[in-house]
Amino acid sequence: VNDKLLKALHGQNEGHPPVWLMRQAGRYLPEYRKIREHHTFMEMCRSPELVTEITLQPLRRFGFDAAILFSDILVVPDALKLGLSFEEGVGPVFAHPLKSAADVDRLPSIHIAESLKYVFDAIKMLKPELNVPLLGFAGAPFTVASYMIEGGSSKELRNTKQWMLRDPDSFHRLLGILTKHTIDYLIEQYRSGVNAVQVFESWAQMLAYPQFKEFSLPYLKKIVDALKKEHIPVIIFARGSSLLADDLAALHPTCLSIDWNGNLPSIRQSVGDKISLQGNLDPETLLNPGTIVQREARRILTQMKGDPSFIFNLGHGILPETPVDSVKALVDAIRENG
Amino acid sequence: VNDKLLKALHGQNEGHPPVWLMRQAGRYLPEYRKIREHHTFMEMCRSPELVTEITLQPLRRFGFDAAILFSDILVVPDALKLGLSFEEGVGPVFAHPLKSAADVDRLPSIHIAESLKYVFDAIKMLKPELNVPLLGFAGAPFTVASYMIEGGSSKELRNTKQWMLRDPDSFHRLLGILTKHTIDYLIEQYRSGVNAVQVFESWAQMLAYPQFKEFSLPYLKKIVDALKKEHIPVIIFARGSSLLADDLAALHPTCLSIDWNGNLPSIRQSVGDKISLQGNLDPETLLNPGTIVQREARRILTQMKGDPSFIFNLGHGILPETPVDSVKALVDAIRENG
Repeated sequence: VNDKLLKALHGQNEGHPPVWLMRQAGRYLPEYRKIREHHTFMEMCRSPELVTEITLQPLRRFGFDAAILFSDILVVPDALKLGLSFEEGVGPVFAHPLKSAADVDRLPSIHIAESLKYVFDAIKMLKPELNVPLLGFAGAPFTVASYMIEGGSSKELRNTKQWMLRDPDSFHRLLGILTKHTIDYLIEQYRSGVNAVQVFESWAQMLAYPQFKEFSLPYLKKIVDALKKEHIPVIIFARGSSLLADDLAALHPTCLSIDWNGNLPSIRQSVGDKISLQGNLDPETLLNPGTIVQREARRILTQMKGDPSFIFNLGHGILPETPVDSVKALVDAIRENG
Repeated sequence: VNDKLLKALHGQNEGHPPVWLMRQAGRYLPEYRKIREHHTFMEMCRSPELVTEITLQPLRRFGFDAAILFSDILVVPDALKLGLSFEEGVGPVFAHPLKSAADVDRLPSIHIAESLKYVFDAIKMLKPELNVPLLGFAGAPFTVASYMIEGGSSKELRNTKQWMLRDPDSFHRLLGILTKHTIDYLIEQYRSGVNAVQVFESWAQMLAYPQFKEFSLPYLKKIVDALKKEHIPVIIFARGSSLLADDLAALHPTCLSIDWNGNLPSIRQSVGDKISLQGNLDPETLLNPGTIVQREARRILTQMKGDPSFIFNLGHGILPETPVDSVKALVDAIRENG
């Protein structure tokens, strides 16, 4: 059993850093695209057999040091009856986005253990197949709320920002509801077999600083506190984490996942050595030949050499256009130079 | 004569901070759109009469504490014969983007004083009409290079990033050429009558940190050094400036313009009081009713109250959708609460 990831989360890794990639089970893999041809995205998420197969695909090819459950951060609002679907080239679309405070107050009461049973079943089927740690995950409340309001992906989060400025009370009610479900969801994932969880605040960098402090940070704190009470290791990812590292580190998560804008040694110096750091290669790097991928990866490996709580990852999810050979070159460089 | 802006640049402002807005002369103004109906964007840039009229429009309405020359950062590559045009809803488009290192080496030798004479003529016509300081500006070399390579606006700067990783030598040659022209251009703007200049590194936040250090920062330093030798006050704007503030402050520009992600008091503490700070209201805030605009503006005014070198601005350019009443409300709040 390879437990390098868990060791790094506890500051006890030796040798090369563990490596996994955000969205490592996904569209850049031909074997994934083959399954996707025959199923909708949500069919894939809802089938324990397909989740197991897709989660295992990148491990077979590259031998990553961790698996991450194949799923999506938007299964929570889907359970809240917003009607999630995924269109090729468009991304997630909600049939019933939130339009008003009344829509927030009409959200159904749900029990996560039932509504998202398909996720927990998948974890239970998948777990015995693995010889590396399994990561669960969820979206952070602000990020998930923004999708629920925008109805899908959005460049500026214009509706979300207007809502939070014009009616902060109902926005906080929505964040409170999502926080409760997110905690239940992550604890149930842990009980089903994941070894650690990652919380994705993918849109933090869209927020002005006072908005981050009001609408993101307190809810992340509630989630981290609840998970730590259950002794569940938790990684916080945020686009904007380079800038927000000190605020996020003050929540005392097990690990901070750093976007590709920041300098890892400066962040390590600033947050101290009681916290794991994960990151932070620019995903665009992987669109280049292997020699260039390896040169850029070595910069990070050299910077973080000997750090017992460093986890190699990208600064954001792997791009669908990524050649598999580049991923192979990356993993080779890490194994050779750690 | 209102010289609050110059006083703030020298750390000597009293009372409310000076205020101006990036792209204050632009599409959100009905009187601007009326002119735009009858002219292409480049016709407007090339006509000293239209530049004068458009630059004055926001001053008449709002009484800003500074004028900024109506022009575009891409007139420099236009002078290099890349064939610039602007399409409604698309943005800038180059007819002849750079495709290879050979294209860089084929860039024509130009004399900025001749090639961009229309800009300097406009400054000379405009300057006597003003009772506030006039700001000139230029794009930073990396940002301008990225437009030249992408052929226009781009979400990921994919071609640019691949070029810089695969062929850094020719990329540095391009940055060197642009740096020389940018310095000539800004010095000639100053000689024609502008009181200070702003350099826009609009895409800094797209860069991984080692790329920022290699491809952006050294060229910004050359520009700042050259301008300070001529005693020209210089403001550096960067998307990403909240994160990069310490690196940018180490260049000793007169002023740093901060994007809307950061917390101004923290940045003031970090960079010290020898540098002006400008910013940093989220432009999306202005899409809300005046009472909300004023509430959010007062957060910043309260934070920076009594700071003799603070300049109120947005964190990025004003949005075309901005209602003029919101801008009026913003300016009123600053005058009343400074």
